Amino acid sequence: MSAGLLAVHALLADYGALLDLGRYDEWLRLFAAECRYAVMPRENYDQGLPAALILCDNRGMLEDRIMALREANKYNIHIDRHLIGLPRITGARPAEIEIEPPFAVYQTDQEGETRLFATGLYRDRLNAAGERLLIAEKLVLLDTAAVPTLLATPL
Amino acid sequence: MSAGLLAVHALLADYGALLDLGRYDEWLRLFAAECRYAVMPRENYDQGLPAALILCDNRGMLEDRIMALREANKYNIHIDRHLIGLPRITGARPAEIEIEPPFAVYQTDQEGETRLFATGLYRDRLNAAGERLLIAEKLVLLDTAAVPTLLATPL
Amino acid sequence: MSAGLLAVHALLADYGALLDLGRYDEWLRLFAAECRYAVMPRENYDQGLPAALILCDNRGMLEDRIMALREANKYNIHIDRHLIGLPRITGARPAEIEIEPPFAVYQTDQEGETRLFATGLYRDRLNAAGERLLIAEKLVLLDTAAVPTLLATPL
Repeated sequence: MSAGLLAVHALLADYGALLDLGRYDEWLRLFAAECRYAVMPRENYDQGLPAALILCDNRGMLEDRIMALREANKYNIHIDRHLIGLPRITGARPAEIEIEPPFAVYQTDQEGETRLFATGLYRDRLNAAGERLLIAEKLVLLDTAAVPTLLATPL
Repeated sequence: MSAGLLAVHALLADYGALLDLGRYDEWLRLFAAECRYAVMPRENYDQGLPAALILCDNRGMLEDRIMALREANKYNIHIDRHLIGLPRITGARPAEIEIEPPFAVYQTDQEGETRLFATGLYRDRLNAAGERLLIAEKLVLLDTAAVPTLLATPL
Repeated sequence: MSAGLLAVHALLADYGALLDLGRYDEWLRLFAAECRYAVMPRENYDQGLPAALILCDNRGMLEDRIMALREANKYNIHIDRHLIGLPRITGARPAEIEIEPPFAVYQTDQEGETRLFATGLYRDRLNAAGERLLIAEKLVLLDTAAVPTLLATPL
């Protein structure tokens, strides 16, 4: 398990760093061929309400989404900074690891002012069958209520 | 030591996650049968002033405290989010590890607005004698001055 | 590599903790005899502008800088709190590791009020040739625009 935990740490580090660098193609490659990515308010999730802010049920949808974000970001120039905490391991099977790391995302605007953008929890199901860990499912549970700029920021 | 460090990471991840999920019974089980939990301003600690904001000298007191917090939280509904940093190892003996991880805690109110609540440093003495790591002593040193809602938030 | 990653985690934990404790002599010992330390706005760096806010090209300059910060801090009393995220590994050779961890730094003033001070990214080149990891080069890329108190805060 210890090699596994280090691989998980490395994956989370890559996840946040590639988003913050805007290297979305590499970020997409962290996901498995069959994957799911959803963003929803934690409150909805806790109450069993299915309404997601973003829901990509397969990789094609996720790729389309990223293309749209890129376009949108031309008009909302900012720098993101992800801080992802140590992940709680909630499940471990031979070919799959489930983790729940907390996160905080900061945004810096063009004037160089930095603000807390959102906090929340990831619920990740990782595919450990191949040579490297891949994200099979990522559920982003937001503490912070959605804000207008949300759609331009992958979380 | 490397297995030890990963176990420390896992314990810290559980510590923050269980608090944020409000699963206090499981959180309590991270503590050893004989334990101590104290919250104090870092300034007091640095100056040798013993005055603690919270001081639970044994497990029974900590359990009582958690019961009280639960009651209080009915009237102060919010979501906590702990981000606990990589721990500095300050002592390692066969049956005991001492660590000092930094932390930031965010709170989100019912309107979905998220604010920084407090930052500080944990001083933890971990019991490594048994099958799994347990917290023998946790000293929460707060950078941030106490705020009214403090008592409703385990740190 | 797994032992290496844990050593990297430990180094980062020490780096932040020693700064926050104001133990600058020990902090300096995290650097190699030949080292470089620079702080610059991420924007400048991305655009290839060389202008650094702080540039210490060798260890003597870094030591002088730290002495000056100490003096300055007598008139700008505050507590720093570094939260350094999981590091992305960007290069690994037998005697050298390159990492990019994100960070957030909080400051607490004398009234006990805590504010986000800056976020950014470290670009570190670590010397793995000896018994323990040492920082050969640290480039601090700031998201946040420089603020007046910057010079009194090692990042």
